[in-house]
Amino acid sequence: MAVYTEVSDAELAAFLGDYDIGEAQSFKGIAEGVENTNYVLTTDKGQYMVTLYEKRVDPRDLPFFLGLMDHLASRGIVCPRPIHGRDGNALRTLAGKPAAVTSFLQGMWPRRTTVQHCGPIGAALAGLHLAGRDFELKRPNALSVAGWRPLYEGCRGKVDAALEREIGAEIDFFEQNWPKDLPSGVIHADLFNDNVFFLNDRLSGLIDFYFACNDFLAYDVAICLNAWCFESDNAFNATKARALLQAYDKVRQLNDDERRLLPLLARGSALRFLLTRLYDWIHTPPDALVKRKDPNEYLMKLRFHRSAASLADYGL
Amino acid sequence: MAVYTEVSDAELAAFLGDYDIGEAQSFKGIAEGVENTNYVLTTDKGQYMVTLYEKRVDPRDLPFFLGLMDHLASRGIVCPRPIHGRDGNALRTLAGKPAAVTSFLQGMWPRRTTVQHCGPIGAALAGLHLAGRDFELKRPNALSVAGWRPLYEGCRGKVDAALEREIGAEIDFFEQNWPKDLPSGVIHADLFNDNVFFLNDRLSGLIDFYFACNDFLAYDVAICLNAWCFESDNAFNATKARALLQAYDKVRQLNDDERRLLPLLARGSALRFLLTRLYDWIHTPPDALVKRKDPNEYLMKLRFHRSAASLADYGL
Repeated sequence: MAVYTEVSDAELAAFLGDYDIGEAQSFKGIAEGVENTNYVLTTDKGQYMVTLYEKRVDPRDLPFFLGLMDHLASRGIVCPRPIHGRDGNALRTLAGKPAAVTSFLQGMWPRRTTVQHCGPIGAALAGLHLAGRDFELKRPNALSVAGWRPLYEGCRGKVDAALEREIGAEIDFFEQNWPKDLPSGVIHADLFNDNVFFLNDRLSGLIDFYFACNDFLAYDVAICLNAWCFESDNAFNATKARALLQAYDKVRQLNDDERRLLPLLARGSALRFLLTRLYDWIHTPPDALVKRKDPNEYLMKLRFHRSAASLADYGL
Repeated sequence: MAVYTEVSDAELAAFLGDYDIGEAQSFKGIAEGVENTNYVLTTDKGQYMVTLYEKRVDPRDLPFFLGLMDHLASRGIVCPRPIHGRDGNALRTLAGKPAAVTSFLQGMWPRRTTVQHCGPIGAALAGLHLAGRDFELKRPNALSVAGWRPLYEGCRGKVDAALEREIGAEIDFFEQNWPKDLPSGVIHADLFNDNVFFLNDRLSGLIDFYFACNDFLAYDVAICLNAWCFESDNAFNATKARALLQAYDKVRQLNDDERRLLPLLARGSALRFLLTRLYDWIHTPPDALVKRKDPNEYLMKLRFHRSAASLADYGL
């Protein structure tokens, strides 16, 4: 939610000199993206996004992220397309930070999610999973089950004792029961409403691939169930889930294992966001220019999934 | 530096329905403007700015601000031009806040100010003063000498005792010695580098008229001396000041009183920004999404002006 790195006029001019995208006419830091600094750049040739990668992104992951966006865009997924410099490189340096220019996507992320969004989300997610199948680079999911205990340890003693026990029991459970082999591939891993653009009620683009990684495809579906299918009072909306799952299934069919394990994956996904939000809540300095997100929301979601017996509880 | 008010898709669509500027294709909150929420709006007809006025702006002042931008734009000053709705009104409501749409200005504000900026600043400021002469609405300057003691009282006991004495003595001095009758008119009152756009080394626009008011025109010049003519180590740069003052003079000549009193006005202007920064430093909650500005910078500037004897110290 903030501009972390200011770019001087001279730095910007030198940076753009390595591209064939014209000269800057406007360059505005935007309040989107918590991990990076993002500018909307307008040149005489069009609009672009300029992203400076801040310390929460590991520079070694950037070839994966940029390569993935290139790969997906070339397969018809509407996502930010990296613009390559004259030397062919998309990953460059600006104001001392790793930086890239991408195409500018039309559309707006929906501030209030409705059932009308859920079908397009399911279809787009399945399309992304299919398009990612032949992407060659790999990136393990650092925030899957193996990453949860370290986050938990970083929160212990700083949260309510009953909550600490509840989370500890969840981690014990998942370390024993996390699935071993489900269909895997590139997942977005963060397809929340602020990462999906709509225009005139149609999905017009997916953004922010900076959590993308290789993992179970159905885990990405589970993340979307959490992100799109609860109401603001944390009540689960089975109509939304049905719309999302049916639309997904039409593009890429979930197999029997995936269907059976979806409640467990959704419960694990809720735990993942509960843990990262709790960790950030505890460790973000109160004067940081970042809005902290409420961990409690994901505790409620986790409990819903734990009580779910089968896909019937998800509207199917 | 943040988006304070989120706008839902439905609210935006309803709001734009009152204008003839097309439908939204993109709507991005930007990280500029500390007082208000600003969005860059792209429609099929072009780019616009949408501003939501937050609680630091008195809604009763908005007709003055918007009317002034209309007035200046019609006289050739490049500034955001309010877009009027179909019913003729420029001031409307969005997401429960007073809001306006303005034209989008090309250009970027210079992150690093140089002597090359100072001539264009002086000329543009004088042009603004001439263009504002026949603007009919009035708004007193709440941050002129009468407003300083209340700010000071709000800081007492919370700052270093020696600094408190120094500021108290300044206020005593200015309450006795502030000029009574100098040429007056509409002033911008906040023409800092982030409020001036340049494009290809030419000044391409002035923005942020939300401190504009009626006051001594030379006081606006004094504010610019503080904003543009010091180095980052707070050393005064007489070459910059000469460029600014000479360019101003070519468009609107400073009279003898104004020239004589400029050091005093610059000292008063430094005190004004010292006081507001100090007040904000003390009263801004540390978790606010606003970067606090260093008050000390203006203490250094105040001391420079207090030691200045005449315009010769400013390069003339």
